[in-house]
Amino acid sequence: MRKILVIGSGKSSSYLIKYFLDKAESENLHITIGDINIENAQKLIGQNPRANAIVLDVFNEKSRTEAIKNSDIVVSMLPARFHIEVAKDCVTYGKNMVTASYVSKEMQALNEAVTEKGLIFMNEIGVDPGIDHMSAMQVIDNIRDKGGEIILFESFTGGLVAPESDNNLWNYKFTWNPRNVVVAGQGGAAKFLQEGTYKYIPYHRLFRRTEFLEVEGYGRFEAYANRDSLKYQQAYGLDNAKTLYRGTMRRVGYSRAWQMFVLLGMTDDSYTIDDSENMSYRDYINAFLPYSPTDSVELKFRHQLKIDQDDIVWEKLEELDIFSATKMIGIKQATPAQALQKILMDTWTLNEDDKDMIVMYHKFGYQLYGKKHQIDATMVCIGDDQTYTAMAKTVGLPVAIATLAILNEKITTPGVQIPITKEVYEPILRELEDYGIEFHEKEVPYFGYNALNI
Amino acid sequence: MRKILVIGSGKSSSYLIKYFLDKAESENLHITIGDINIENAQKLIGQNPRANAIVLDVFNEKSRTEAIKNSDIVVSMLPARFHIEVAKDCVTYGKNMVTASYVSKEMQALNEAVTEKGLIFMNEIGVDPGIDHMSAMQVIDNIRDKGGEIILFESFTGGLVAPESDNNLWNYKFTWNPRNVVVAGQGGAAKFLQEGTYKYIPYHRLFRRTEFLEVEGYGRFEAYANRDSLKYQQAYGLDNAKTLYRGTMRRVGYSRAWQMFVLLGMTDDSYTIDDSENMSYRDYINAFLPYSPTDSVELKFRHQLKIDQDDIVWEKLEELDIFSATKMIGIKQATPAQALQKILMDTWTLNEDDKDMIVMYHKFGYQLYGKKHQIDATMVCIGDDQTYTAMAKTVGLPVAIATLAILNEKITTPGVQIPITKEVYEPILRELEDYGIEFHEKEVPYFGYNALNI
Repeated sequence: MRKILVIGSGKSSSYLIKYFLDKAESENLHITIGDINIENAQKLIGQNPRANAIVLDVFNEKSRTEAIKNSDIVVSMLPARFHIEVAKDCVTYGKNMVTASYVSKEMQALNEAVTEKGLIFMNEIGVDPGIDHMSAMQVIDNIRDKGGEIILFESFTGGLVAPESDNNLWNYKFTWNPRNVVVAGQGGAAKFLQEGTYKYIPYHRLFRRTEFLEVEGYGRFEAYANRDSLKYQQAYGLDNAKTLYRGTMRRVGYSRAWQMFVLLGMTDDSYTIDDSENMSYRDYINAFLPYSPTDSVELKFRHQLKIDQDDIVWEKLEELDIFSATKMIGIKQATPAQALQKILMDTWTLNEDDKDMIVMYHKFGYQLYGKKHQIDATMVCIGDDQTYTAMAKTVGLPVAIATLAILNEKITTPGVQIPITKEVYEPILRELEDYGIEFHEKEVPYFGYNALNI
Repeated sequence: MRKILVIGSGKSSSYLIKYFLDKAESENLHITIGDINIENAQKLIGQNPRANAIVLDVFNEKSRTEAIKNSDIVVSMLPARFHIEVAKDCVTYGKNMVTASYVSKEMQALNEAVTEKGLIFMNEIGVDPGIDHMSAMQVIDNIRDKGGEIILFESFTGGLVAPESDNNLWNYKFTWNPRNVVVAGQGGAAKFLQEGTYKYIPYHRLFRRTEFLEVEGYGRFEAYANRDSLKYQQAYGLDNAKTLYRGTMRRVGYSRAWQMFVLLGMTDDSYTIDDSENMSYRDYINAFLPYSPTDSVELKFRHQLKIDQDDIVWEKLEELDIFSATKMIGIKQATPAQALQKILMDTWTLNEDDKDMIVMYHKFGYQLYGKKHQIDATMVCIGDDQTYTAMAKTVGLPVAIATLAILNEKITTPGVQIPITKEVYEPILRELEDYGIEFHEKEVPYFGYNALNI
């Protein structure tokens, strides 16, 4: 029996565990799920005799090493900052490891030891990062195999609410960590490459410099730039690309309204507000507006942000009830961002029968025999319910498939790595199609940023 | 003979040294000026037999301690970060010390040792901080002595170009460290108190939330909020004040135009621009604008920032020649802020016969026998020339006067301190009047922020 240790049984582990359980018989697996709180793990396992849940605190060395020693491969679904202790043990005890997280400096530093021992540490194999790497590299490699040269690569991902559950003016609900949504885009200017020129957007302009995208059958989306669009330039072999852009997708109109919060300073997470606990939503909004003994918070808001009376942005703000004098922030020493998150969660929390949706959009511009071409590839995945979400599916399935592929020695190249080689992405993308996660490619005329084709 | 050691003979030391030299005979002084480069010191001293210049590197312990041991009092006019070594020696050798800089944590930590030895370490005794402290505390103490309670305190200072030299559309030239002007307001939201409510302004809104001020004989000014208006609330004894606001003054219209640079991200000092050395001003501006194969940088700029064709802001930008395709940034690895500074220095550098100006404006709102009153106090100081600037005068004279007052034992309270007690500010403010640095007070009706008096 091959023993898989899954550490962490949070939201993103449901599909992953289901995949292992479904294959447990045919693949002769035993799955141990370790978490501080095993309630969710037990629920996911049910009565399956090929799985068990154990209490595991990653900071307790004894129980951690015990569990790792006793496994054939380790899947860490913990938040990224908790991987490193697990990774070090995997080196010590010679176990392969799989995570959906970005490769940290500490993780990268293990590369030599991992390679020397012939181990495979597969990272960034969730959805974003993960499916984006694999699906992009498949098209890029195809183009290269034909003799083409990539001149443009743009990649967009969005975690959104499914159309059937989309019933608010923002066309948005929290389908993942709300905090990341509130502080999205902060921490420095966004940098990207457009037609050979580096471009920079400061945070307070990010949501006013969106791009638009059309996904067949799903309508229009917008995207704002990620902080570093050049991150994978080398890894993807795109040193000669003239345009590189990575972005986050929302429904059209979200960003223009979100900009109101950015402009007033409500997304700031760097200081705390005095007496936030006893503030109403209205008091909180008013802290970012000039004092007036007579003018309403509403009019000051409209005036500061120049919002016309018939602007849909205003309705979006009202839908959130941000001017309520009775609803309270109720958080001690809240940062502006924490208070805003509280307000948004009233309205943007998924209902029990809501479904989420993951959308991905890649553009590949390339030159072949002196002519320019473009391929657009899109993927949409909709969740089943609140346990088997699109997020859990697109994060968990590639992790699970990769884990089994490593166990079955279909993936054999050792080292700390991300899924950008054929050996890795081909079998995984093929199997993902069985689960409805597939990309639709279409050839479109190449315009680059020369939309008028002059 | 009483021996004064002045460390640092930069721009701000001219008046200070002149003051000492003028009093050298009558007060029986000898002045030693220490600097790494003694050229400027020698020029300021001339043939005066009661002064000498010595080469002094504050990081050379031997020459530093030698000079300090051999003095009766030490004036440090170095940048703030260099004071601490000097201060420690002053404790060791029992010397009093005077600086115009903010009290650092390290300086404050010496308080016990300083007090124990009966020494006086006077800090923040330049213009801002310095004259602002003294002039504010004089009025505040007067109001308190009458039985009044301060309910509002606002204080504004500006280092500007004198009206007779004011010949550009921004009504601004660099009269001090240009770098500080370019990055002004960064590092976190501005916080202040208005009618009992804390208010917060993020950096990217700071220059759109200005206040207006009228100074008799000098016209209108605007002011943007300093980062922390509450800094001296305790020191000034203003715990019950309902409004506290500190700001920086500019001529009206400066901030609205400056906001264009803020919005595009041109004042960012946190990252470097690729190939900045070989960029024209136009290339630099274009790095913050969307790519277009056809549209001009000018139109993209106007469109992004919604600048109408007849808006004076546009003329201000053109005056700076920011769209020049031939003028080069020419700085390797420049941050956006450094590149912007380069562009501004072309236009905003003082001409040889230009004069500078310091403007200060305080508002004191108070309650006396149940009635509300307000006193506004203003001070304007205009420089003589480019050596004896208003900045050098208002920074150097209070430092010099305080130094002599300590030598003459008019100031006797020991400790690390700032000039907020009568003992200190009264003699100094009185003497400053002889040099034309005086405040004009006038009673005005108290409106607070209730401008319509409803």
